[in-house]
Amino acid sequence: MTKLWNKGYNLDAVIENYTVSDDYSLDQKLVQYDCVASLAHAKMLHKIGILTTQELRDLEMGLQEIMSLWEQGKFKIERSQEDCHTAIETYLIEHYGDAGRKIHTGRSRNDQVLVALKLFAKDEIGQILEAAQELVKSLNAFAKAHRETPIPGRTHMQLAMPASLGLWAGAMSASLQDDVIFLQAALKIIDQCPLGSASSFGVSLPLDRQFVSDTLGFEKVQHNVLYCANSRGKWESMALSAYTQIMLTLSKAANDLIFFSLPELGYVSLPKELCSGSSLMPQKKNPDGLELIRAKAATVQGNLNIILEIIRPLISGYNRDFQETKRPFMQSTQITKESLWVMTHTIEKLEVHLDKCVAAFKPELFATDWVMELVAQGIPFRTAYQQVAQNPNDAPHQDPIQNIRTKNYD
Amino acid sequence: MTKLWNKGYNLDAVIENYTVSDDYSLDQKLVQYDCVASLAHAKMLHKIGILTTQELRDLEMGLQEIMSLWEQGKFKIERSQEDCHTAIETYLIEHYGDAGRKIHTGRSRNDQVLVALKLFAKDEIGQILEAAQELVKSLNAFAKAHRETPIPGRTHMQLAMPASLGLWAGAMSASLQDDVIFLQAALKIIDQCPLGSASSFGVSLPLDRQFVSDTLGFEKVQHNVLYCANSRGKWESMALSAYTQIMLTLSKAANDLIFFSLPELGYVSLPKELCSGSSLMPQKKNPDGLELIRAKAATVQGNLNIILEIIRPLISGYNRDFQETKRPFMQSTQITKESLWVMTHTIEKLEVHLDKCVAAFKPELFATDWVMELVAQGIPFRTAYQQVAQNPNDAPHQDPIQNIRTKNYD
Amino acid sequence: MTKLWNKGYNLDAVIENYTVSDDYSLDQKLVQYDCVASLAHAKMLHKIGILTTQELRDLEMGLQEIMSLWEQGKFKIERSQEDCHTAIETYLIEHYGDAGRKIHTGRSRNDQVLVALKLFAKDEIGQILEAAQELVKSLNAFAKAHRETPIPGRTHMQLAMPASLGLWAGAMSASLQDDVIFLQAALKIIDQCPLGSASSFGVSLPLDRQFVSDTLGFEKVQHNVLYCANSRGKWESMALSAYTQIMLTLSKAANDLIFFSLPELGYVSLPKELCSGSSLMPQKKNPDGLELIRAKAATVQGNLNIILEIIRPLISGYNRDFQETKRPFMQSTQITKESLWVMTHTIEKLEVHLDKCVAAFKPELFATDWVMELVAQGIPFRTAYQQVAQNPNDAPHQDPIQNIRTKNYD
Amino acid sequence: MTKLWNKGYNLDAVIENYTVSDDYSLDQKLVQYDCVASLAHAKMLHKIGILTTQELRDLEMGLQEIMSLWEQGKFKIERSQEDCHTAIETYLIEHYGDAGRKIHTGRSRNDQVLVALKLFAKDEIGQILEAAQELVKSLNAFAKAHRETPIPGRTHMQLAMPASLGLWAGAMSASLQDDVIFLQAALKIIDQCPLGSASSFGVSLPLDRQFVSDTLGFEKVQHNVLYCANSRGKWESMALSAYTQIMLTLSKAANDLIFFSLPELGYVSLPKELCSGSSLMPQKKNPDGLELIRAKAATVQGNLNIILEIIRPLISGYNRDFQETKRPFMQSTQITKESLWVMTHTIEKLEVHLDKCVAAFKPELFATDWVMELVAQGIPFRTAYQQVAQNPNDAPHQDPIQNIRTKNYD
Repeated sequence: MTKLWNKGYNLDAVIENYTVSDDYSLDQKLVQYDCVASLAHAKMLHKIGILTTQELRDLEMGLQEIMSLWEQGKFKIERSQEDCHTAIETYLIEHYGDAGRKIHTGRSRNDQVLVALKLFAKDEIGQILEAAQELVKSLNAFAKAHRETPIPGRTHMQLAMPASLGLWAGAMSASLQDDVIFLQAALKIIDQCPLGSASSFGVSLPLDRQFVSDTLGFEKVQHNVLYCANSRGKWESMALSAYTQIMLTLSKAANDLIFFSLPELGYVSLPKELCSGSSLMPQKKNPDGLELIRAKAATVQGNLNIILEIIRPLISGYNRDFQETKRPFMQSTQITKESLWVMTHTIEKLEVHLDKCVAAFKPELFATDWVMELVAQGIPFRTAYQQVAQNPNDAPHQDPIQNIRTKNYD
Repeated sequence: MTKLWNKGYNLDAVIENYTVSDDYSLDQKLVQYDCVASLAHAKMLHKIGILTTQELRDLEMGLQEIMSLWEQGKFKIERSQEDCHTAIETYLIEHYGDAGRKIHTGRSRNDQVLVALKLFAKDEIGQILEAAQELVKSLNAFAKAHRETPIPGRTHMQLAMPASLGLWAGAMSASLQDDVIFLQAALKIIDQCPLGSASSFGVSLPLDRQFVSDTLGFEKVQHNVLYCANSRGKWESMALSAYTQIMLTLSKAANDLIFFSLPELGYVSLPKELCSGSSLMPQKKNPDGLELIRAKAATVQGNLNIILEIIRPLISGYNRDFQETKRPFMQSTQITKESLWVMTHTIEKLEVHLDKCVAAFKPELFATDWVMELVAQGIPFRTAYQQVAQNPNDAPHQDPIQNIRTKNYD
Repeated sequence: MTKLWNKGYNLDAVIENYTVSDDYSLDQKLVQYDCVASLAHAKMLHKIGILTTQELRDLEMGLQEIMSLWEQGKFKIERSQEDCHTAIETYLIEHYGDAGRKIHTGRSRNDQVLVALKLFAKDEIGQILEAAQELVKSLNAFAKAHRETPIPGRTHMQLAMPASLGLWAGAMSASLQDDVIFLQAALKIIDQCPLGSASSFGVSLPLDRQFVSDTLGFEKVQHNVLYCANSRGKWESMALSAYTQIMLTLSKAANDLIFFSLPELGYVSLPKELCSGSSLMPQKKNPDGLELIRAKAATVQGNLNIILEIIRPLISGYNRDFQETKRPFMQSTQITKESLWVMTHTIEKLEVHLDKCVAAFKPELFATDWVMELVAQGIPFRTAYQQVAQNPNDAPHQDPIQNIRTKNYD
Repeated sequence: MTKLWNKGYNLDAVIENYTVSDDYSLDQKLVQYDCVASLAHAKMLHKIGILTTQELRDLEMGLQEIMSLWEQGKFKIERSQEDCHTAIETYLIEHYGDAGRKIHTGRSRNDQVLVALKLFAKDEIGQILEAAQELVKSLNAFAKAHRETPIPGRTHMQLAMPASLGLWAGAMSASLQDDVIFLQAALKIIDQCPLGSASSFGVSLPLDRQFVSDTLGFEKVQHNVLYCANSRGKWESMALSAYTQIMLTLSKAANDLIFFSLPELGYVSLPKELCSGSSLMPQKKNPDGLELIRAKAATVQGNLNIILEIIRPLISGYNRDFQETKRPFMQSTQITKESLWVMTHTIEKLEVHLDKCVAAFKPELFATDWVMELVAQGIPFRTAYQQVAQNPNDAPHQDPIQNIRTKNYD
């Protein structure tokens, strides 16, 4: 058997290549999740009397074998099999006969994909949340260490008012903590078990969906069977909305760090281990990791759109279009996780140059403080503003480090 | 005074037109929110001794006057004033002199915009959540009424298995309930008070930010002052991510209803009050509201991208680019709210044609049920599947209404 | 008569507000184009014997009146009329009776919109192409004047090799010239006359479409009547693809100029007429025009997506969804035209600081030239590269102006 | 040697994995193009005296060897080599010593990438244009064969007026012909040789760029060296704008064909060779190829955005961000080509069911024709319209085939 829906004729070759695409290779990452879900399904089928005890044991053994083979890199999905679900059922039938022929009772490939993807998502989002917490810790440590490392604050990229590297790191940390809240909301929505929805319309069998959901560790059953199918792509796009926010935070941090490390500023520098060079210009030391964070942030946002655009036009029920949402989802998950690692790494290895930070302070940075002094003397703000505006560079110079101590940056 | 930062020379006319854009007209919707925030700011300035009691009374009176004028449609923002913040300060200075000149102490226009937009957002999102709950109610009532109104379930838009209009409405309701969770998460993140962040770097005055936050009814202070500025556009994009999900749900409902009301299907029809006609073809009755929900869903998603693309490249601190995020945010807020109203209206007035629903059932819709019967007789699923696949149209016909009663659709 | 398709009942108020949206106000810009197209249509109807000579004269007079009223700002489109097409037909019927009742013979509102939008597009794109040529001229003049104004060339934003402001301006000019080619291709595709396609399916009247096309100055007739309707949004999106390229060029120029005018670099500065200030910080002089070019570039790209996303899911023939493509198209047209003006203005007023440019040269900028000297002595490139890489800062210093004279930058 | 810019220390492992990404595997498709470009570069270096005749022969031989190895699938690019350019230079140095060390004289990896990608693009776009012409031919043949196969024309997806399958195919053909014009414009812009731009700033060697351009068959030299670098991503995005238009045409055709093949309509059907089945429902025959065309159209549009969003924020000169534009460009090129093949295949194998087409005609489809008859009798259009609107279903029935013969559909 090559395809679950095989009926005896061959799919036209051009179409086959086009329709299977790289789905079968993406599915390498879903094998273990499908096995786990199949196991829970088999236990439930046994519980409601569809499988005998022997058949359940056969399937447990078969699924264990597949997981072992997979860990050793020996479980292959052929292009002609299309996906991991077919490969797994095929293995079970070849090795365990009728037990294998019964495993698909009461489910469709569609809800297999849904449940495997959700188990994958829960795992990966868990790792992303951990990686985000790691970065929050690194940023907070950096913020504490550099609470009094002054740098010019900017608006419109021009000099504005005194700021500090600690304030900057705190801003990144606060941003990431908001992102975590958003991703947790997506995770909560994802954490509903779709298995048992079959082809969007249920089946006329007394499936015990609560049992399957509990066995797999879901928070609850996703009750409406049509919504299970309809939510494909939708919950991935919620996760990607949150990934996009994380990448937005990382991208801003990357923009800032590249800016701070311009030769003309030099507030910070990256250790050479984090840079690459040029094939032509021998002196170059380039912040490639940070540049790629910027670029990959665009990729994740683009992938969010791909998923949204694929699913928005569809009527209810499964449509093949859904398949194309898998790659952008899986790719973005990996990018987000790795980008967090790269940024944590960067923050921990960042070299700060206090001399350059202090040297960067020009009188105009203190103009607003001068206004506030006049305000403290009772001059109305707008009047004081217009007075200082005549000669902002005459603002009394201050020691930058002393200055930022007077600000409430916590 | 025409501009808060006026220093005596005139901005080049081409640039002025380009930079002010339609910001001053969008700001009509922010006047009352800026007044409320200004009032809280004034109270705080009084509390920390910057304003005398008389000055506070002057400002309270002035701000009340502005709000009254605004309600009567008489508070105008001139293009030359750029925005509501300038118009309000100008009014206060003209009518209350130094009290007006002091109102801007310790704040920047930037955090005025931030707080006014957040108050607007909290109000509007509250209305959207209410409208969503209304629609959930309507959908649930429709689902209950049509639990046993059978329609063909489809996958790949082709006939699949029996379904019901109730299952369909339940799927839409479940989808919207997930959207509500996502929007609530965005609202929670928005609900942090930015006022007092000044130009992203605080000021050297002992502002009581907690007092302002409490006065304005925020859940908490957004502490990091740089993050206040950096989060502009970011929290709007979180709201838009949730709006996008709502519009995705509405768009799918619209797609389905337009499909169900095709002349060849006719499961439902729209009352003529919800349709428009053609200028050329006299017989036309078109589902314009539903078509526009589809189109406006694309607009909201596009607006999400506009905001994300504007803010992603920016370094920390205020940049003028932020201004362009206001229109897509405000426009999308209105679209989402109105689209929920239109859909609620549509669901409530929808006419269902049971005869057409029942007539739509062809034998192939029962093929899977036939497989399940064979499974119940002990035949392994895959074997039964292949047996039925030979002649799926021979599936024993069933009464559609009886059939869906056997499905667990709740 | 309020609506062309009026049949006696009132559209539900919520729906009406939702469906008409701001279409009637956008249509203010289309009045004259619809009049011109209606005139050509009337002449053709007369030519094929549908209109009498007197009726044609009546319509000519009526349309002239409307155009005069419009120029004086007195031709109003009521929200209840939905669009300019209804307002115009209503006027003609009220003032000229049956002649007015005949004007719509053989056309639909849909092809009226199409032809009016195309006439608008041809006009506006013509202006954009002119504005682009103006900017090319300004950039070329700037390039010539600053051929030997040296600035550090950068890769990865770090110092790379010597460059010049002239090279920079030449790059912007070359980029814009490519954009012009792309926009001309879009214009060529737009330049096909759709009038006579009716509601996508033609009519059973012997319309002389070639005559209408010639009268209106189109290059050719858009023959396939279904494609006329199907191309709505499509040709707008082609124009927007080209606008996006123009905005990409302008955005890069804006990024560079903001960067060049950082206080730490100061290669160029903007005259204060092109800057705005801060409401809080008295010293600020901000490059708002350039920042908004960046932001508006994102808006135009977002609008491109809105149009593409609206039209992609539609089946053939007119769908109401198309209406929502009008605003993003018209808005983007205006943004692109104005952005070109702002950039031309900026280039012409830009102040260059040669002292800062020269002072920016550090030895490492000459490392590659040092490699090339070794290459000229016969050392293989890769060997020379590795030798210089040991101490790139030992590169023999050169006079920057002399150096760039040796480069072939034309 | 592992990296062209190797200076003796190892890149941190996390960063290396993140920065190289899948670039080295994408580069498998660029090996032959880099070899061809390297050969032209070597000939030029010989012409200007940098390479001896023997060195040129060595390089010719080495590059031939690499191309042979590549054709046999034996030329591997290691992840540690990052890209094909490094792998090729490494091979040449290992096998031909100093000749290999000289090949990089006067170029950078950046312009190697640019020229190889442009040669790839020219090749692939040539194939896409051919595939588009093939589809135009198939559509025209189908249009001719089905000029008089009547189907209901629709607006708002509702019944509108008579149409024909021939009209439909003609519309798709006309659309694709416009797309071809747009892609040809992109190709013309791409057809400029960037080689010799080095790291965006040229080199101080008398490179003969015209010779290289002619040798490689480019239409002209891309003169401004900074623009060469700046145009990376830009010309790819122009190609993708045109691909997006092609996919838009294919997507509409797919939407229509899926719609026409609904069981309730059945105007056409797909041969089973072009369909797949369901793992659960034995009767299913699904139009997967067409569904995936829709989904992949969204992917191509998303990829366009990814490229635009990556490059828009960048200042002039090479930035590492560019690397991330390679995958979306190459992936979209393949999708567009294959989608054209799949659609051509589908059109050629499409089965038309004339009986179902004719049976689909209901009286209301002739209402507009009835209006036109009244118009022909001298009744003003709007009066006739209102008269027919009372009872559109009383429109005199016509033979659909006769009816469409009276329409001017060519």
